[in-house]
Amino acid sequence: MTSYDAPLADMRFLLHGLGLLKSVNALPGMEEATEDLVDAILEEASKLARDKLAPINHPADLAGGSKLENGVVRTPDGWKEAYDAFVEGGWNAVPFDSDFGGQGLPWLVGIALQEMWQSANMAWALCPLLTQGAIELLSAHGSNEQKAAWLPKLISGEWTGTMNLTEPGAGSDVGALKTRAEKSGDHYLIRGQKIFITYGEHDLTDNTVHMVLARTPDAPAGVKGISLFIVPKVMVNPDGSPGGRNDLRCVSLEEKLGIHGSPTCVMAYGDNEGAVGYLVGEENRGMEYMFTMMNNARISVGLEGVSIAERAYQQARAYARERVQGKTVGNGGGAIIGHPDVRRMLMTMRALTEATRAVTYDLAAMLDISNRHKEESWRTYAARRVALLTPVVKAWCTDMGVEVASLGVQVHGGMGYIEESGAAQHYRDARIAPIYEGTNGVQALDLVGRKLLRDKGEGALEYVDEVHSLINGLNQRSEEDLVVIRRHLAAGVDALDNATHWLLDAAGGNQVDALAGATPYLRLFGIVAGGAMLARLALRATESIEAGGDDPILADKLVVARFYAEQILPQASGLATSISAGSGAIMALAEDRF
Amino acid sequence: MTSYDAPLADMRFLLHGLGLLKSVNALPGMEEATEDLVDAILEEASKLARDKLAPINHPADLAGGSKLENGVVRTPDGWKEAYDAFVEGGWNAVPFDSDFGGQGLPWLVGIALQEMWQSANMAWALCPLLTQGAIELLSAHGSNEQKAAWLPKLISGEWTGTMNLTEPGAGSDVGALKTRAEKSGDHYLIRGQKIFITYGEHDLTDNTVHMVLARTPDAPAGVKGISLFIVPKVMVNPDGSPGGRNDLRCVSLEEKLGIHGSPTCVMAYGDNEGAVGYLVGEENRGMEYMFTMMNNARISVGLEGVSIAERAYQQARAYARERVQGKTVGNGGGAIIGHPDVRRMLMTMRALTEATRAVTYDLAAMLDISNRHKEESWRTYAARRVALLTPVVKAWCTDMGVEVASLGVQVHGGMGYIEESGAAQHYRDARIAPIYEGTNGVQALDLVGRKLLRDKGEGALEYVDEVHSLINGLNQRSEEDLVVIRRHLAAGVDALDNATHWLLDAAGGNQVDALAGATPYLRLFGIVAGGAMLARLALRATESIEAGGDDPILADKLVVARFYAEQILPQASGLATSISAGSGAIMALAEDRF
Repeated sequence: MTSYDAPLADMRFLLHGLGLLKSVNALPGMEEATEDLVDAILEEASKLARDKLAPINHPADLAGGSKLENGVVRTPDGWKEAYDAFVEGGWNAVPFDSDFGGQGLPWLVGIALQEMWQSANMAWALCPLLTQGAIELLSAHGSNEQKAAWLPKLISGEWTGTMNLTEPGAGSDVGALKTRAEKSGDHYLIRGQKIFITYGEHDLTDNTVHMVLARTPDAPAGVKGISLFIVPKVMVNPDGSPGGRNDLRCVSLEEKLGIHGSPTCVMAYGDNEGAVGYLVGEENRGMEYMFTMMNNARISVGLEGVSIAERAYQQARAYARERVQGKTVGNGGGAIIGHPDVRRMLMTMRALTEATRAVTYDLAAMLDISNRHKEESWRTYAARRVALLTPVVKAWCTDMGVEVASLGVQVHGGMGYIEESGAAQHYRDARIAPIYEGTNGVQALDLVGRKLLRDKGEGALEYVDEVHSLINGLNQRSEEDLVVIRRHLAAGVDALDNATHWLLDAAGGNQVDALAGATPYLRLFGIVAGGAMLARLALRATESIEAGGDDPILADKLVVARFYAEQILPQASGLATSISAGSGAIMALAEDRF
Repeated sequence: MTSYDAPLADMRFLLHGLGLLKSVNALPGMEEATEDLVDAILEEASKLARDKLAPINHPADLAGGSKLENGVVRTPDGWKEAYDAFVEGGWNAVPFDSDFGGQGLPWLVGIALQEMWQSANMAWALCPLLTQGAIELLSAHGSNEQKAAWLPKLISGEWTGTMNLTEPGAGSDVGALKTRAEKSGDHYLIRGQKIFITYGEHDLTDNTVHMVLARTPDAPAGVKGISLFIVPKVMVNPDGSPGGRNDLRCVSLEEKLGIHGSPTCVMAYGDNEGAVGYLVGEENRGMEYMFTMMNNARISVGLEGVSIAERAYQQARAYARERVQGKTVGNGGGAIIGHPDVRRMLMTMRALTEATRAVTYDLAAMLDISNRHKEESWRTYAARRVALLTPVVKAWCTDMGVEVASLGVQVHGGMGYIEESGAAQHYRDARIAPIYEGTNGVQALDLVGRKLLRDKGEGALEYVDEVHSLINGLNQRSEEDLVVIRRHLAAGVDALDNATHWLLDAAGGNQVDALAGATPYLRLFGIVAGGAMLARLALRATESIEAGGDDPILADKLVVARFYAEQILPQASGLATSISAGSGAIMALAEDRF
C-alpha cells in the first residue's frame, strides 16, 4: 500500500499556469480567491488528505468496511476522527453560501479539494459529496425558514445529507417510484422503501438530513408526480435542540464490489406511524428540483474518475520504481519502470489522469462563470458549455478511471491481484462511478438527446469551432512537439465534427441511429476534449519556456500532451466511423436471438 | 445469479459449419473424432457444466472461497463432489495420450470442453488446467519410468498437478529464482519457497504432483541454470501404494481480488529434511522444458477470457430481458434489452465473445495440425501459426474477457455493483487472466520480439496474405453485409500490414521503438484476427443460406460479423497510427519525473 500526495504542481499549473483561477477570481463575489489564498488552502488540504484520509482507506477496505449492528451503522476505524477533523477545519463549508456559514469560494477550488478527498479515500469522501447534494437542493429550492433550519449545520458538516431516489423498481427510471407522502398538518407522512442510499445511516454525526422523493396521493403518474421532502433522522425542536427519532431506519447494507467503507443502505420510511417529512418547494416539482443540482453532482462523480485514476497512478508509479524484475531497456537491470511496456502503462495512466482532470477543472470554472458572470451573454455561453460537457465529464472521466485503475493492477503483475497491495481496491472502487448518478449510458443519451439534438448542435459546434481556433493558434508554432500535437488534435476534432453532423442529419431520419451512436459519440467527445485541454497546457508550457521558465513541469506537460496526441487521440477516427455505421447491426437481432 | 448453458450451437458452427473439426479429424490418429461423436461429447459435457459446476460457482465466491485450516485447504461446498463427477466421467482424460489412459481426442475438442468448465466455474476449472500442465511436461520430457509412475493418475484426474515457478523476487523474470535442489542418491532434496501456486494444496484428491523449478548447487546463473523436478505431496512406494508425506506444505493462502474458490498457495519446500524431488530430463534444462508446454497453457488461459466473456454475456442477457426500466425504443416499454444503448453493450459482449472464441478454436485446430499432420511442411506451417497467434490469444482474449465482464456489470446498472447479482464476480475473476501465465505485456514482447522480428516477419506477413485472400474471396460477393464486412476488414488488415512493416523497419534502427509498440500491435493483431474469423463465419453462413439453410443462427452470424466490422474493426487504424509514433513520448520522461 502506498501513500497519497496531492498533485499540487499539476493542480497549480491548471489553476494559475493556464489561468483558470484568474477567470474565476474576476467574477463578482469571488475576489477573495486569489492565487496566494488558494495555494494556502490547497497546501493545507493536501495535509489532511495525506495524513488523515489516505491512511485509513485501505485498512477499512480490508476490514470489510462499514457494518450494520442492531440498526446502527459502524463506520470503519478512523472514519469518525477524520470526519471530525474535516468539519473542524471548515473543509465542508468551502464552496457554499457565506450567508449560512459557507466560505463562498469558487466551485473550481471546491473541485480541487474534492479531488484530494476522493483520491485519498473515495469511500469516505462520498459522505460530504452527498451532503453537498442536499445543500444544493435546499439552497436552490428551500424556503427561507427551511434554509435557516437546515443549511447551517449541513454546511458546517455537523449534519450530513443523503439523496433518496432509487427504489427496487425505479433506478434510471425514477418516475416509477412508489414511496407515498400524505399530508398531515404542516408536514407529510412518508412511507416506502429506498435502496442504494449512500451514508443513509452512520455514526459520524448526530443527525442526517434525508432528501426523499415521494408521491402524494393524487399526484400524476411518472416524473411529473414526484415531490421532494426533507426527512430528518432526528427531529429538531423549534429551538434547534434535538427531538425524538423520526420513523425511519436502515434495514440492511448492500454487499458491494467496492467502496466498502461507504455504507449503502436500504432505508425504510414510515414502518410505524409514518416518517415526518417537509415539502421542499411545491408538490410534483421534485424531479425538476433534482435536475437543477445534477450538474454539480455529475461533475463531482466525474471527478471521482480523475481522483481514483490519480491514486492508482501514484500507487503504480511507486511499485514500478521499487520492483526489480528482468533486464530493462531504459535503466539496464533496474526497476520495472525501465521497461518500455511498463512505461507505456504509466504514461497512459498519467496522460488520462491529466486529461480528465483538465477537462473537469475547466468545466468547474465554467460552472462558476455560468453562476456569477456579470454579463448575461457570458452566463448563457458558460451554461451551455456546462450543459454540454457535464455528461462528458461524468461518463468519460469515470470510464477512464476504471481503465486507469485496471492498468494500475496490471503494472503490479501478480501482486496486483492480491488485495494486500491495494491496487485491486482502486479497481473495485472505481467501478461504481460509471454506474451511479445516472449510468454512463444515460449520460450518453443526455449528451446526444438533450444537449446535441435539442439545440440542433449549436453548443457542440460552438465547441468544435473553439478547438479549431486552438489549432489555428498551434499552426503558428514550429516546435516539433506542438506540430505533432496539432496534427493529431486536428484529426480528432475533424472526427468529432463529422460525427456531430452525422448525428444531426441522422436524427432527422432515424432517431434510433442517433441513440445507438450515443456512447461512442460521448467517448469521442471526451477524447477530443482531453486532447484540446492538454494541447492548451502544452502551448502554455512552451510559452513559459520561451519566457525563460525552467520548472521541469513545463517539459513534462509537453511530453504528456504529445503522448496523449500520439497514443489516445488516434482512437477518434475509428469512433467516428463506428458512429456513422448507424444502428442497423446494433438493433438487427430479435430479442429472442440473444 | 443466472445459470449457464454451453453455447453448443455456436461451438458446432465453428467445429462443423466452418469445418475446423474436419481438418482435425483427417489427421493420423484423430479418425475417431467424428462429428457425431464430438456432438455427443459436447452434449454430455454441457450437462456437467450446467448441473454440477455452474451452480456452485457464485455461492463459493460469496462464502469466501477456499480456506486454510491447520495446513489443510478446504475447498468450497460442492467442489469435491463436482471434481469426483468430473473424474468419474473421464473428462480429465479427454485430450491426453491413450497409452496412459487418455482418450486421445484432439485439442480442438479439449478446448471446447475446457471452455465449458471455465465458463461454468473458472475458479474450479483451474485445478484441471494446472494438472494439464503437469501432464504435458511429463509427457514431453519425463523418462519412461516417470511417465508410467505419474501419468496414469494425473490423466485420470485421481491426482492433480501444479506448476511452481514464481518466487517473491522472481515473477516474469523466472531466472532469478532461488529454490535449491541438492542431489541425494536417486533423488534431489528441494528447499525453498514458492508463491502464487494454484491449487498447491487442496482436499479434492489424495495426492498432488508438484512440478518445481529449482537450482542445483553449481548451476549457471539465470534461466540456463534452472532444473525441473517432480515433487509429490505424498510419497509413492514402488508398488504404487501411498508412502509418507513429503517435506512440503502450504504456508498461507493469498487474499485475492477474485477466483476465490481457487486456493493460491505460498508453498514451503524442505523446511525440515528437504523435500524429495525427481529430476525431469537433464539438469539446467528446466526452462527449455517449460517453454514446450507454454503454448497449450497460454491458449488455455486465453480461453479463460472467452469463457468468462460468455458467462458474463449470458448473465447480462438474462438480466436485460427481465429488467423493466424506462421507455424503450425497441419494444415500447418492455425490458431494457429494447434500449439501443443496452443493445450496443450486449452486441459488443457477444461479438467479442464470438470473435475471441473463433480465433482460439482456430488456433487449437492449428495446434493439432502442428502436432500430427503427416506432411512436415504442414506441421511447420501450423507450428509457425501457433507460435504467432498464441500470445495474441493469451493477451487479446483475456483483455477482452475483462472488457466484456465490465460491460456485464454495466448492463446491470446499480445491481451490477452488488455482489449478490454475480456480475461483479465475473469482473473480479476475469482480471487475473491478463496477469498470470505471462503478463499480457510479456505476451506482447513475445509477439514482437520472438515471433515478428526473429523470423523477419515471415509468419506475420504470411498471415496478412491469408487475410488478403479472404478479402479477395469476399470481393466476389455483393450481399450488403458481406460488402460492409469486407470493407472494414480490408481497412483493418491494411493497418496490420502497415504496422508490421513499420515495426520491422523500426527494429533495424531503434529496438525500443518496436518494444514500445508491442502492446498496441498485439491489440491490433487480435482485432484483425477476430474480424477475419467472423468474416469467414459470415461467408460460410451466406453460402449455407444460399444452399437453402434456414437455421436462424446463419442470419445471426451475419449480424454479429457486421456489428464487429462496424464497431470493433475501425479501432485498427488508430492503433497503427499510435504504433508508428514510436517510443519518443513513451520514454521521454526521466524516471524521477513520474
